[in-house]
Amino acid sequence: MTVRIGVTGATGRMGREVIAAADAHTDCDVVFAVNRSPDDETVAGREVEAASAFDSLLSAREPAVVVDFTGPASALEYARGCAEAGVAFVTGTTGFADDDLAVLDAASEDAPILRAPNFARGVQALVNVVGEAVRNLPGYDVELVETHHNGKRDAPSGTAKRLLEEIEANGDFAGRTHGREGETPREAGEIGVHALRAGDVTGEHEIVIAGNHEEVRLTHRAEDRGVFAAGAVDAAVWLAGRDPGRYEFADVIAD
Amino acid sequence: MTVRIGVTGATGRMGREVIAAADAHTDCDVVFAVNRSPDDETVAGREVEAASAFDSLLSAREPAVVVDFTGPASALEYARGCAEAGVAFVTGTTGFADDDLAVLDAASEDAPILRAPNFARGVQALVNVVGEAVRNLPGYDVELVETHHNGKRDAPSGTAKRLLEEIEANGDFAGRTHGREGETPREAGEIGVHALRAGDVTGEHEIVIAGNHEEVRLTHRAEDRGVFAAGAVDAAVWLAGRDPGRYEFADVIAD
Amino acid sequence: MTVRIGVTGATGRMGREVIAAADAHTDCDVVFAVNRSPDDETVAGREVEAASAFDSLLSAREPAVVVDFTGPASALEYARGCAEAGVAFVTGTTGFADDDLAVLDAASEDAPILRAPNFARGVQALVNVVGEAVRNLPGYDVELVETHHNGKRDAPSGTAKRLLEEIEANGDFAGRTHGREGETPREAGEIGVHALRAGDVTGEHEIVIAGNHEEVRLTHRAEDRGVFAAGAVDAAVWLAGRDPGRYEFADVIAD
Amino acid sequence: MTVRIGVTGATGRMGREVIAAADAHTDCDVVFAVNRSPDDETVAGREVEAASAFDSLLSAREPAVVVDFTGPASALEYARGCAEAGVAFVTGTTGFADDDLAVLDAASEDAPILRAPNFARGVQALVNVVGEAVRNLPGYDVELVETHHNGKRDAPSGTAKRLLEEIEANGDFAGRTHGREGETPREAGEIGVHALRAGDVTGEHEIVIAGNHEEVRLTHRAEDRGVFAAGAVDAAVWLAGRDPGRYEFADVIAD
Repeated sequence: MTVRIGVTGATGRMGREVIAAADAHTDCDVVFAVNRSPDDETVAGREVEAASAFDSLLSAREPAVVVDFTGPASALEYARGCAEAGVAFVTGTTGFADDDLAVLDAASEDAPILRAPNFARGVQALVNVVGEAVRNLPGYDVELVETHHNGKRDAPSGTAKRLLEEIEANGDFAGRTHGREGETPREAGEIGVHALRAGDVTGEHEIVIAGNHEEVRLTHRAEDRGVFAAGAVDAAVWLAGRDPGRYEFADVIAD
Repeated sequence: MTVRIGVTGATGRMGREVIAAADAHTDCDVVFAVNRSPDDETVAGREVEAASAFDSLLSAREPAVVVDFTGPASALEYARGCAEAGVAFVTGTTGFADDDLAVLDAASEDAPILRAPNFARGVQALVNVVGEAVRNLPGYDVELVETHHNGKRDAPSGTAKRLLEEIEANGDFAGRTHGREGETPREAGEIGVHALRAGDVTGEHEIVIAGNHEEVRLTHRAEDRGVFAAGAVDAAVWLAGRDPGRYEFADVIAD
Repeated sequence: MTVRIGVTGATGRMGREVIAAADAHTDCDVVFAVNRSPDDETVAGREVEAASAFDSLLSAREPAVVVDFTGPASALEYARGCAEAGVAFVTGTTGFADDDLAVLDAASEDAPILRAPNFARGVQALVNVVGEAVRNLPGYDVELVETHHNGKRDAPSGTAKRLLEEIEANGDFAGRTHGREGETPREAGEIGVHALRAGDVTGEHEIVIAGNHEEVRLTHRAEDRGVFAAGAVDAAVWLAGRDPGRYEFADVIAD
Repeated sequence: MTVRIGVTGATGRMGREVIAAADAHTDCDVVFAVNRSPDDETVAGREVEAASAFDSLLSAREPAVVVDFTGPASALEYARGCAEAGVAFVTGTTGFADDDLAVLDAASEDAPILRAPNFARGVQALVNVVGEAVRNLPGYDVELVETHHNGKRDAPSGTAKRLLEEIEANGDFAGRTHGREGETPREAGEIGVHALRAGDVTGEHEIVIAGNHEEVRLTHRAEDRGVFAAGAVDAAVWLAGRDPGRYEFADVIAD
């Protein structure tokens, strides 16, 4: 069955990727594309409509789900519209304040809402297995290396932080250290976190678990940003028609 | 509490490693070392006794467990001795015929018996998580690369085969291919298995799971053979005092 | 000084990448884009003109250099046109027959012609250093692993073959083997060549040089096809204004 | 022709490795082994003699070369003895003060002296090629990752520093940064240096050169400390019989 999808932020970098991913997906039909400032642009041959038309598009085009990569303010507007219309809402928008999350919670009483910082299935797969790997290797040292393009300003990456939470929840660790220089003996249980910034690397994360004359390495590498768009579309197909409530990308993968 | 350990094949490569690992373990005491042809050798300062003295050593030195890396014929003799004396038996010996395994089964009615082809905890950790990783990434391509020293004569390695079984049990795969040359388009679902042989590499295994513009890699690397000896000693400490029966290294890790 | 560039095969996959790379290059101006079947398409906002207009475009728009990723027949036509007009010609077209190469040679008497199978500077850097690495490590084992997307039909890759030539020219090797299975002891001096096909990997090549309890690995990874377009544009900027003759991408890098 | 070798620091960790490496080398004969405190020990079946006997052993046993891994004070004593006897001297001792180096210089007027911080041929091979790789990829970002066992107290490693010198001598770089955390945008030209400390890793160094949608990685990995001993023995065989003077390990490799 074809899932009817609406796309917000359609002229943005991720919006374009989402439309491309939905077009490539055999079970999807993009039924509208909106943007705050559509500027007469077309995306993949589609007319982009103004955000002000969003609510009427929901009723006229009958999407089963909306996929949103915008900013917090826009995302909340779109979420409210979806809740009123009972349309599922998938958002990869980041930077929500706590108050914003409360708005999403309220919206989830009337529609299924799925929010995720990262829609790469492979990242989720690593999150899902790293805990068991760490538990299987008690007393081993853990270090994490993440590599991103030279324009990324913050370190470590959000995905690295997510992996570190999972590692720390599954072992007896003593804090994180970010780089070593000079006389810096390793403290028992510390986790070294290393942020490489170089070239155009989309994103690579590697967890090193070493001890007892052996090493286990768990690595994820994104080839390009399309992987995030494809994950969001997978999430949309999965979310369409579900009961109202809050969902996570892990639910999609686990299913 | 200190675990009293007897070591067979004591003058062999792995026997020596086991004695070194047990000496390094805080909770172990090596109470005897035997070899089929002891040749007046000492290992780590210990006299090595003849295999013919095995049964009397079991009663005189009262080991809680025997660790064995020998050949099938010797291993079965030692297993029978342990069964009669009710002493736990850990063996990393390989090459057993089906009939031999029946002998081990019989022995396991009177003593706990643990047999494993690989005592690296990290390999076991990979075996434990690779299935979930594969299930989380349906439709992705899987390839396996293993690297060993240039003297290894067979391919792929036993550990690679174990990992492949686990992969295949968790997805819809269409057979294995060992190398590609010329016009060799990838069949959907085939698993490429690649055996590098170079230098003195103790053993490295890497599973590549790729699709949808992303890759997950799960890698194990043994630094030296000591890791296998240490795992065998861990297994011995764990097995000592358990009920008769057959055990696997996975049981040690899971505990 | 701005280099005026004409682009052939403009609506093809690489043609589009070349136009994007030239637009991103600070010293380039794309002065025309042609295609055998322009089909009223625009590329990056530019009108694409018919191949039949090529010669008149050369005189009207005065490019310093033409960049070509087409097929052998078209490429030879374009090369002849450039030779007559004295315009530099960079081609990444592959599949030329020996007779075709003679045509390029003839054209190079009247214009500078640069042909290359791969315009990634990093691949060229590896080609440039792998020989010295191999000479520095006599008697070490060499293996090569290349990974490409699951749609690549041939193995090993052209780039792998180029690297192998360079390796073999710098050591005493005994042939290549493509995959190992069963009882396959490594012959002294053989080079194991391993072709992984998985997911959407643009292209990765790794040379392993191992012996004497150590390993050296030289690796190249293309993030996306844009790297090849950018290299071709670099080559175009470099070639513009040079003397007639045949050039290689190595000349660009060495300069 | 067999090279007669004397070994100092024979009961030390590296001395034992040197004796094992020399025994494994087809063209070497260990003609004596000395130690400051021989303590009636044997190494590989050889009696270890007192350092006080060094000069008489030089004349009685006629080594062509002495291999030394000791401390600065001992090493200088041994070097002086070799200079007087005209015997070649290879030392991997570290921690010499500038005055000490002057003593080695003086000794090198009467005997060939080779001093090196690292006798891994593979490290030397990387040092030899990294400059060309960096020159071939102007404007690319460079980062260095080194991994050592969890007991290593200083960072980065001496070998990392040597590689960084070579990188910096071949490009336009703007300093090193050791770890990144928080809002830390990459400065143009900075080199990120990352020190992982984990498990029992003997030593791994990886140089990442990334830009223009591609990456080159140059990696060295030591399997165990034997690689350093083997390199020292290679250096000894090479140095025996040469003219007095100072030599480096690079001379051995280049030859």
